[in-house]
Amino acid sequence: MKNTFGNAFQVTIFGESHGDAIGIIIDGLPAGIALDFAFIQQQIKKRQPKEKISTKRHEDDAIEIVSGFFENHTTGSPLCILIKNNQHNSKDYEALRYLLRPSHADYSAHIKYNGYQDFRGGGHFSGRITAPLVVAGAIALQILKSYGIQIATHILQCYDIEDESFASDEESLQKQIQSINNHTLPVVKEETAQKIMQCIQEKAQQLNSVGGIVESIILGVPAGLGEPFFDSLESTLSHLLFSIPSIKGVEFGLGFAFANKTGKEVNDCFYYKQGIKTKTNHNGGINGGISNGMPIHIKAVVKPTASIFQKQETVNIKTKENTILEIKGRHDPSILPRVCVVVDSVLAIGILDAYMQYAMYQQLSKK
Amino acid sequence: MKNTFGNAFQVTIFGESHGDAIGIIIDGLPAGIALDFAFIQQQIKKRQPKEKISTKRHEDDAIEIVSGFFENHTTGSPLCILIKNNQHNSKDYEALRYLLRPSHADYSAHIKYNGYQDFRGGGHFSGRITAPLVVAGAIALQILKSYGIQIATHILQCYDIEDESFASDEESLQKQIQSINNHTLPVVKEETAQKIMQCIQEKAQQLNSVGGIVESIILGVPAGLGEPFFDSLESTLSHLLFSIPSIKGVEFGLGFAFANKTGKEVNDCFYYKQGIKTKTNHNGGINGGISNGMPIHIKAVVKPTASIFQKQETVNIKTKENTILEIKGRHDPSILPRVCVVVDSVLAIGILDAYMQYAMYQQLSKK
Amino acid sequence: MKNTFGNAFQVTIFGESHGDAIGIIIDGLPAGIALDFAFIQQQIKKRQPKEKISTKRHEDDAIEIVSGFFENHTTGSPLCILIKNNQHNSKDYEALRYLLRPSHADYSAHIKYNGYQDFRGGGHFSGRITAPLVVAGAIALQILKSYGIQIATHILQCYDIEDESFASDEESLQKQIQSINNHTLPVVKEETAQKIMQCIQEKAQQLNSVGGIVESIILGVPAGLGEPFFDSLESTLSHLLFSIPSIKGVEFGLGFAFANKTGKEVNDCFYYKQGIKTKTNHNGGINGGISNGMPIHIKAVVKPTASIFQKQETVNIKTKENTILEIKGRHDPSILPRVCVVVDSVLAIGILDAYMQYAMYQQLSKK
Amino acid sequence: MKNTFGNAFQVTIFGESHGDAIGIIIDGLPAGIALDFAFIQQQIKKRQPKEKISTKRHEDDAIEIVSGFFENHTTGSPLCILIKNNQHNSKDYEALRYLLRPSHADYSAHIKYNGYQDFRGGGHFSGRITAPLVVAGAIALQILKSYGIQIATHILQCYDIEDESFASDEESLQKQIQSINNHTLPVVKEETAQKIMQCIQEKAQQLNSVGGIVESIILGVPAGLGEPFFDSLESTLSHLLFSIPSIKGVEFGLGFAFANKTGKEVNDCFYYKQGIKTKTNHNGGINGGISNGMPIHIKAVVKPTASIFQKQETVNIKTKENTILEIKGRHDPSILPRVCVVVDSVLAIGILDAYMQYAMYQQLSKK
Repeated sequence: MKNTFGNAFQVTIFGESHGDAIGIIIDGLPAGIALDFAFIQQQIKKRQPKEKISTKRHEDDAIEIVSGFFENHTTGSPLCILIKNNQHNSKDYEALRYLLRPSHADYSAHIKYNGYQDFRGGGHFSGRITAPLVVAGAIALQILKSYGIQIATHILQCYDIEDESFASDEESLQKQIQSINNHTLPVVKEETAQKIMQCIQEKAQQLNSVGGIVESIILGVPAGLGEPFFDSLESTLSHLLFSIPSIKGVEFGLGFAFANKTGKEVNDCFYYKQGIKTKTNHNGGINGGISNGMPIHIKAVVKPTASIFQKQETVNIKTKENTILEIKGRHDPSILPRVCVVVDSVLAIGILDAYMQYAMYQQLSKK
Repeated sequence: MKNTFGNAFQVTIFGESHGDAIGIIIDGLPAGIALDFAFIQQQIKKRQPKEKISTKRHEDDAIEIVSGFFENHTTGSPLCILIKNNQHNSKDYEALRYLLRPSHADYSAHIKYNGYQDFRGGGHFSGRITAPLVVAGAIALQILKSYGIQIATHILQCYDIEDESFASDEESLQKQIQSINNHTLPVVKEETAQKIMQCIQEKAQQLNSVGGIVESIILGVPAGLGEPFFDSLESTLSHLLFSIPSIKGVEFGLGFAFANKTGKEVNDCFYYKQGIKTKTNHNGGINGGISNGMPIHIKAVVKPTASIFQKQETVNIKTKENTILEIKGRHDPSILPRVCVVVDSVLAIGILDAYMQYAMYQQLSKK
Repeated sequence: MKNTFGNAFQVTIFGESHGDAIGIIIDGLPAGIALDFAFIQQQIKKRQPKEKISTKRHEDDAIEIVSGFFENHTTGSPLCILIKNNQHNSKDYEALRYLLRPSHADYSAHIKYNGYQDFRGGGHFSGRITAPLVVAGAIALQILKSYGIQIATHILQCYDIEDESFASDEESLQKQIQSINNHTLPVVKEETAQKIMQCIQEKAQQLNSVGGIVESIILGVPAGLGEPFFDSLESTLSHLLFSIPSIKGVEFGLGFAFANKTGKEVNDCFYYKQGIKTKTNHNGGINGGISNGMPIHIKAVVKPTASIFQKQETVNIKTKENTILEIKGRHDPSILPRVCVVVDSVLAIGILDAYMQYAMYQQLSKK
Repeated sequence: MKNTFGNAFQVTIFGESHGDAIGIIIDGLPAGIALDFAFIQQQIKKRQPKEKISTKRHEDDAIEIVSGFFENHTTGSPLCILIKNNQHNSKDYEALRYLLRPSHADYSAHIKYNGYQDFRGGGHFSGRITAPLVVAGAIALQILKSYGIQIATHILQCYDIEDESFASDEESLQKQIQSINNHTLPVVKEETAQKIMQCIQEKAQQLNSVGGIVESIILGVPAGLGEPFFDSLESTLSHLLFSIPSIKGVEFGLGFAFANKTGKEVNDCFYYKQGIKTKTNHNGGINGGISNGMPIHIKAVVKPTASIFQKQETVNIKTKENTILEIKGRHDPSILPRVCVVVDSVLAIGILDAYMQYAMYQQLSKK
C-alpha cells in the first residue's frame, strides 16, 4: 500500500502480472455516464505490444466490468474492472528467483515485504499493472472531453532521435495531436516513427535497451484547477506520473531549462483578447500550483528498460553470493511506444480529480 | 485547500504573508521528543534573507509553540507552531491590486477564489509560507538523525555558474555536506558561493532575476521506504517538492540524462560486501518506488523569481485593459540561496512519513 | 463513494447483489501472513441463511483471491477477493422498479444517483455487500488473535426475547463466547435460540419482520488504541457499525443507561493488582476515546427488516402517483442471526486499523 | 492524532486547556463568505458556563483570526482561528499528577503517550477543546442556513427530568426551536429548565454529577446527502458525535426503540404531496445511509461528568499504589447545558461536508 489515489475521483489498483487478473476500482464516478467502450478498447490497444519492437507475448486485455455499471450507465457505486491475465509459464522465473535484477524492484521489494512478494514477472511492480490505469484513464478522458478538455502525449526523444516539439498555437497543436493518433508510433512526424523503430530494433539486437522523453499537452483546462498549498497541480500530476514504473523525472513548461534563464526572458506576460491569456507559456499553464487557462505542458523522462539480455553482475539474495544474471523471456527494449497512453491516462485521472474539486468550490463560492 | 500532507507524520499549513501570523500543525509526532530549539533556529536562519543578495526586510521569525509541547517534550497531541509576521505596509500592494503580475499566482488565484484571495504580498502563495515548513522540517530532521538519516541540499547551478556535484562515495559526501553548512551560501565550493553572489548582484542591478538547480542527497535511508503503487517514494517526494513555489522540475538519479542512455550503461548492478549495495547509483537510491539503501539523489529546478523591477506588459483584471506593470518593494532576485533549506525540510517531512509507515509494517510483518 | 475505510489496514468495497460478483480490496496487510481459509469459511458460513428463519436462496459464497497472495502467504500488495453472485431472476424486480420500498434506500439513492442506481435487490445497498466484509473481518480476526485479541457478538434481544448479557469477569465471558459459537443461533443460552427462532417464524407467518439488539465484547485489547480527537475508538468503531445496513443506534458501556445515573454511581475506579484495572467497566473499556485495557463493550440496535410481504402504501417515482406495493421474493424476517458475524467483522477491521497505528507510535515513541 | 476530519470541509483541531491557546484550521471554505461574527459570538456564549450550575471560571473565549480572512470575507485559503486560554494555576494539578482520575482519559492517555501527555486540566482531552469546534460549527451553520438547512439540539433528559420531544410537524418544530433559543437552558419548555437547574444544583451540593440525553433535529436537508458504503450519513455524524468527550451512545430516528418493534409498525411509507415524503419518520431522515429529505433526528447520551468532589479510590501511576483521590478545582456537575451547542456544531460540520460532496456529484451528474 498505498494503492488508492484521488479525492473526488478515486482509483484503487490491484493485481500482479502472474495472478489471475489485475484490476482497478473507480469510486467517485458521477452516475449516469454511458461508457464509450470503443474508445476504451482503442486506448487499451495503444498500450499493447507494438509489432517488431515489442515482446511477442499476446495480451488480450479484454475488460470485465464487475460492478457499478447498469443498463449501460455508471450507477454512482464503485466501478470495478478486471483484466484477466493469460496463463504464464512461471517456471521461467523460478530459476532466477533469488538473483536480483539490476535497476528492478527485486531487492527493495524483497526487503520491504520480507521476501513474501510475488516475484514472478515483477508481480505488483510489473508494467502490466498499468493496463487497468489505461481503462480508468479512458473513462476520465471521455468525461474530460465532455468538458472540452483534451490530452495528448508523444515520444519527444528516444535515445538520440528527436520528434517535433508541441507547437505554441492551438491550430498547429490540433494538427500535431491528429498526427500522433494516426502514426505508427505516438510521434508528431512519421519519419521520427521510422527512425525510432530502427533505433529500438538495433538496440534490441544488441541485447540492450534505451530511454527517452515523452511530452504531454493538456488543452481546454479552465483557469482555477489545483489545490495548493500541497495539492498544487504540479504536485498531484507529478505524484501520478512518478507512480508509473521507469519514470525518473518530470518537468512543467520550460522545466530544467529555467535554470540558466532570467526572469525577463521567461516571465509570461498577460494580455487581454477575448479573455486573459499569456503571450508565452514558459510556466506550462500553471501558476502558483493552479491552472491559468493556457495549455498544460509536461515532459517526463523514461529510463531504459531495466531488463536487458546481456549478462549482468548481481547478488543471490538467498546465498548472499556475487553471481552473474542472464535474463530470459520477453521484454520491450523500450517502453516509450507503449508508455504514452499510460501517461495520458494518469494525467486524465489527475485532471478530472482536480476538476471535480474545482467544480465543487466554484458552485459553492457563487452562493 | 488542500493544506494537509502525510499519512503518519501529518502537517497542516496556514497563513498569509500579510496576516498576523503563519504557522503549521504537526499531527502524528511521537510523544516524548525533546525538541532541539537551537537546531530549529539554525534552520530558520538558513531561510532568512542573505546579506547583499536578498530583500532587506527584517524577519524575526521567532517561533511560538501553541500546543503539543509540555515539560520540554512533545506530548503526542498536535504541535501547533506560529510565526508572527512583521507589520507590513499593505498600501504598497493596493496600487497594483488589479494588475496581474506575470508568472505569479495572481490570475489563477483570482479566478479560483473569485477575487476574494488576499493579494497582498502573494498571500497564501507567498514564499513566506515556507517558513513554518522549515520548522516542521527541522523537527523531522532531528528525528531522522536519531535513526541515522541525513539530508543535504546545495545550489548545483545558478544561471551559468555550476557547483561541484555530490560525490558517489560516503566519505567525500560527508566532507561536501560539511562544506555546504559552513560556506557563505549552501554550495560545496566556497568559490562558487562568491561567483553566485556576484551573478545575483549583477542581475539585481539589471532589475532582473535568475533561476537555477538545487541538488539533494539523503543518506542512511534503509531499504524498504515507499508505498507503491501510488505512494512511490518518487511520488511523495516530488509531490512535496512541487508544492514549493517556483519549483518546475524534479528528477531522481540520472533523471533527464536517462533519455539518451542504454540499459547496459545505466543499470545499477548489485554486489555484496557487508550488505547488498549497487556499484553505481543511477537510479538515485530508489527502485520500484522503494528505497534500496543507496543514497537518495534528487535534483530540482527553480525558475527565476517572477517579481522583477523592469516594466512588464500585463492586464488590469478589473478593467480588462492591457497595461504596464512596474513592481515595487523588496524581492529576492533569486531564491536559490534560501530555498535549499526548504527543500531539505520537505524532503525530511516526506522521508519521516515514509519511515513511520515502513516501521509499522516491518514490526507487524515480523509477527 | 466513499467505499474505502481505514488508515493502516484499508478496505475498499465494491459490487451489487445482482452483478457478477461482489468483493473487497485489502491494502495494508503486512506481508507473510498465512491465511486461515478454514476460519474464513467458518465465518462466511455464519453469515449464510439459517434454516427455517431465512430466505431459501442458496449462496455459495466461494471466495476467489485475485491478487496479493502467493505461495500461501500475503505479499504486502493489495489483496483482492471476489465472491461470485448466483444467477438471479432480475425480472422480479422490474415490475416494482418505480415503486419505492418503505424504509429502503430506494428513494434516497434514486435522488442521489439521478435514477441510474442498480435497483435490483438493493444493488450496492443490499445486505449482500457485507459478505466480503466478513472475509476481510476474518483475516483481521486471525491477525488480532495472534496479538491476543478476541471479539464476540451475540443477539442480546430479538423483539421481546432477551438473552443473557455478557458477564463482567473473564472466566464467565470465555464460557459465554464458547456457547455463542456452539449454539443454533449466536446467543449465550440455547433456550434463547429456540425462543428467537419461534418468534421470527411467527412474525414471518404474519408477513412481518422484527428488530433487536446485538451485544459485542472485545477482549485483550491493550490500553492505548484510538486516535483522538476525531478518531476516538468510539468514533471509528461507530463509523464502521453504522455502515452496516439496518443499524440505527450504537452505544458503549452503559450507553443510554448513563442518562439517569450520577458520577458516583458509574465512575470506574482504578485499582492495582498485577496491572492497573478498573473495578467496574461502565465506560466499556474506552476512556477519552482510547482503550483502557478493560473489555470493550458495545451494543447496537438493528431495525426490523424493511422488506415485509404485507401491502404497503408508497409512491411510484416515475408517475409520482400514490399506490400500493406488495414485495415479493425472499427476505429474512430478521437479520439478527446473520448480522452478528458482520458486526464482529467490522469491529475487527476497526480494531486492527487502530492497533497498527498504535503499534507504530509505540515503537517510535520509545526511541 | 488524528485531529483532522472531513473530505471537502476539513477541520484540524489543536490545543490543550492549559496551553497558551486552542484553535482550529478550516480548510475547504469556499471563498467570498462574509462571516457573521455576531452569530459566532452568540454560539460561543451558548458554550460558556451557566450561572449557578457551572464552574465559576471566567472564559473570555475571544476569537482571533490568524489567516484565511481578508476584507471581511473568506479567501479560500485555510482559516485559522485561535482562542487564548486564561492564565491557570497549574499547581493545582501537580499535586494529583500521578493519581488517575476515574473515568477520565488519564490512564489510557498515559499509556498511549508514555507519560508525556499534558495532564493539566485534561490537556488535549479537556472539554475546552470543543470551543474552537463551536466556532467552526457556527461558520458551517451560517453557510448551511444559506442553503435552507437548520440544526437544533436540546436537553431531552437530565437524570430523571424529561423535556418535551421534538414534534413531527414542521410548524411545531419551528416553535420548539425558537423556545430552545430563548429559554434559560436549551430546552423546549421553560419549566424543564427550572427543574434541571434544581437537579444539577442538588447533585452539585452532594459533590456528585449527572448524565442525560440530548436530542437533535436537522431541517431542510435535501435528499441525497451521505456517501455509503462507509461514509453513510449515520457513520460520519456518529463519528463526529463520538469525538465529543462524554458522549457514549448515538441513535438515529427510533434508535434503540427499534428493538422490540415489527417492520409493519415502523416502516416509513412514502406518499406524494408537493414532493415525496414519508408519513412517519422512524428512520430519522436517513435511508441506506443517505438523507431522504425528512428531518434528520438524532439522540445522544452524555455520561455524568467524571470529575466529582467525593473521595474516590484510585491508583498512583508512579508508585503503583492503591490510594484515595479527592478532586479539587472547578468542574460542571453536568455538561448537558453546554454540550448542546457543541452537538449542533459537529452536526453542522458533518452536514456541510456531506453537502459539498453531494453538490459536486449533483453538478457533474447532470452533464
